[in-house]
Amino acid sequence: MKLTVLGSSSALPTSTRYPSAHVLNTHERLFLIDCGEGTQMQLRKCKIKFGKINHVFISHLHGDHIFGLYGLLSTFNLMGRESALHLYAPENYDQMLVSHLRDFDINLNFEVIFVPLRGKEPVNIYDDKYINVKSFPLQHRIEAFGFLFREKPADRNIIKDCIIKYGIPTSKIPAIKKGEDFTTEDGQLVKNDEITIPPVEPFSYAYCSDTMFFNRLATYVKDVNLLYHEATFDKSMSELAKMTCHSTTHDAAKVARKAHVGTLMIGHFSARYKEISGLVEEAKAIFPATIPAIDGTTYDLGDLPKF
Amino acid sequence: MKLTVLGSSSALPTSTRYPSAHVLNTHERLFLIDCGEGTQMQLRKCKIKFGKINHVFISHLHGDHIFGLYGLLSTFNLMGRESALHLYAPENYDQMLVSHLRDFDINLNFEVIFVPLRGKEPVNIYDDKYINVKSFPLQHRIEAFGFLFREKPADRNIIKDCIIKYGIPTSKIPAIKKGEDFTTEDGQLVKNDEITIPPVEPFSYAYCSDTMFFNRLATYVKDVNLLYHEATFDKSMSELAKMTCHSTTHDAAKVARKAHVGTLMIGHFSARYKEISGLVEEAKAIFPATIPAIDGTTYDLGDLPKF
Repeated sequence: MKLTVLGSSSALPTSTRYPSAHVLNTHERLFLIDCGEGTQMQLRKCKIKFGKINHVFISHLHGDHIFGLYGLLSTFNLMGRESALHLYAPENYDQMLVSHLRDFDINLNFEVIFVPLRGKEPVNIYDDKYINVKSFPLQHRIEAFGFLFREKPADRNIIKDCIIKYGIPTSKIPAIKKGEDFTTEDGQLVKNDEITIPPVEPFSYAYCSDTMFFNRLATYVKDVNLLYHEATFDKSMSELAKMTCHSTTHDAAKVARKAHVGTLMIGHFSARYKEISGLVEEAKAIFPATIPAIDGTTYDLGDLPKF
Repeated sequence: MKLTVLGSSSALPTSTRYPSAHVLNTHERLFLIDCGEGTQMQLRKCKIKFGKINHVFISHLHGDHIFGLYGLLSTFNLMGRESALHLYAPENYDQMLVSHLRDFDINLNFEVIFVPLRGKEPVNIYDDKYINVKSFPLQHRIEAFGFLFREKPADRNIIKDCIIKYGIPTSKIPAIKKGEDFTTEDGQLVKNDEITIPPVEPFSYAYCSDTMFFNRLATYVKDVNLLYHEATFDKSMSELAKMTCHSTTHDAAKVARKAHVGTLMIGHFSARYKEISGLVEEAKAIFPATIPAIDGTTYDLGDLPKF
């Protein structure tokens, strides 16, 4: 599982920080999470293949999380896209999208399958062989949702040499990969862990932006390997954070600590911070395994710092 | 008069070319012409002051010329803008803008004064002491307009030493600046060109994008110092250019030659051209004083090449 940060700014972009957009790569399928202005240019700079993006998740309908979507859809169209795009966004956005595309003379060649986000509890919004995705409610000025991506445990890997050594027939392999022991033709019982090795650890990633601090949030993102949590403001600005329904560095770190996550990534930085190292230090004081989101950077979830 | 190119791509941006947007600086007031996605980030990179932009001109309602406007308006708002913004755009856009801002929960703190573009002939759309701006019709798949910015001739500059030498009273200065001669107290006639120097040459700039070639266009942009004309395609692609209502390098150069402009700048390059030097060479074969539009570059109209 790899995460590419396309934008780490809050509503006002800076010359080095673009508005919100993340790309999660799991099994070489790409999930785009939020789509701020300039997302398509950042995708190009990061050499990310547009054709591999089949799912787009929009946390809420504030411009810095969505104004890149129109350009991206146009570009998909101009590139000749035909495969359907799954769009997960707050209820009613489908009607807005239709009228906006009509206003701008855009006739999509491909289908947009709209999945409305709703609910006061976590909801399954996508599920396949490899991954489960849930949305969960955030607390912001308007309805907003976080997303939780959990890879499923893969099957165990059979040790190839053992197939010959014990004469394992092809028909038995699926069961062995699920953990069954094997009995040879002459009745010898071979324990599963002698003929298989464990699969790669499944990873999980949660995205929480935009939101103010609230107690239940930690239960939604419990034990994830990587938690992205907005930290628009430094700890001294907790009043402004509350007033605007955003989080401080300490709010983000408290969620991370309470949820026992592996690593916390903070982002959605206010344009007032030219340097973000101070914000990272503040979060580290509460949750040491904190890293900043940096535009154009790809993070391998297997290589993240843990403390 | 200085022009900054923020974007030189056509509908598909590349990693080095953003969608259309130009900033014209005349007497330190800034005119934004088109506002493709990413315009606000390009403005920041070019260190252009947002507060000096009071007039925005939108050529037509295709996304690559306008998808940056929502983000820019939001940013103006967040920066506390209070002064009115003049928005020149095709008719009906005001209604689209209102519904779009409502959809995205944006309540502007400042007034947007909407000036609808219309007409089959050039129309005055702005006029002040320093400059006149006209819109004129282009020929594209949808209604589209070009813009002509002409500085007004400034007054002559009085030579300061002459004021003392000839005893010129303050009351006479405005007339002398307009070109009148001066008669001293003892009846001596002093010719105007002895006591004044000519003003800086007034410059003119025309923006033509998107359009196919048509004969009358050259009459609209006659004798401008700098003509920006789209050249989406190379000369071999004239059929595709016609079909999509765009121009080739040769189309742009023919307009420049016919209009006797000082310099031709070509842009709106298709993403298929990684290198644009070939396009420039093609245009130069017909109109030697051709330069390419390059993202992030500022051109002083007094320093442009002429042949």
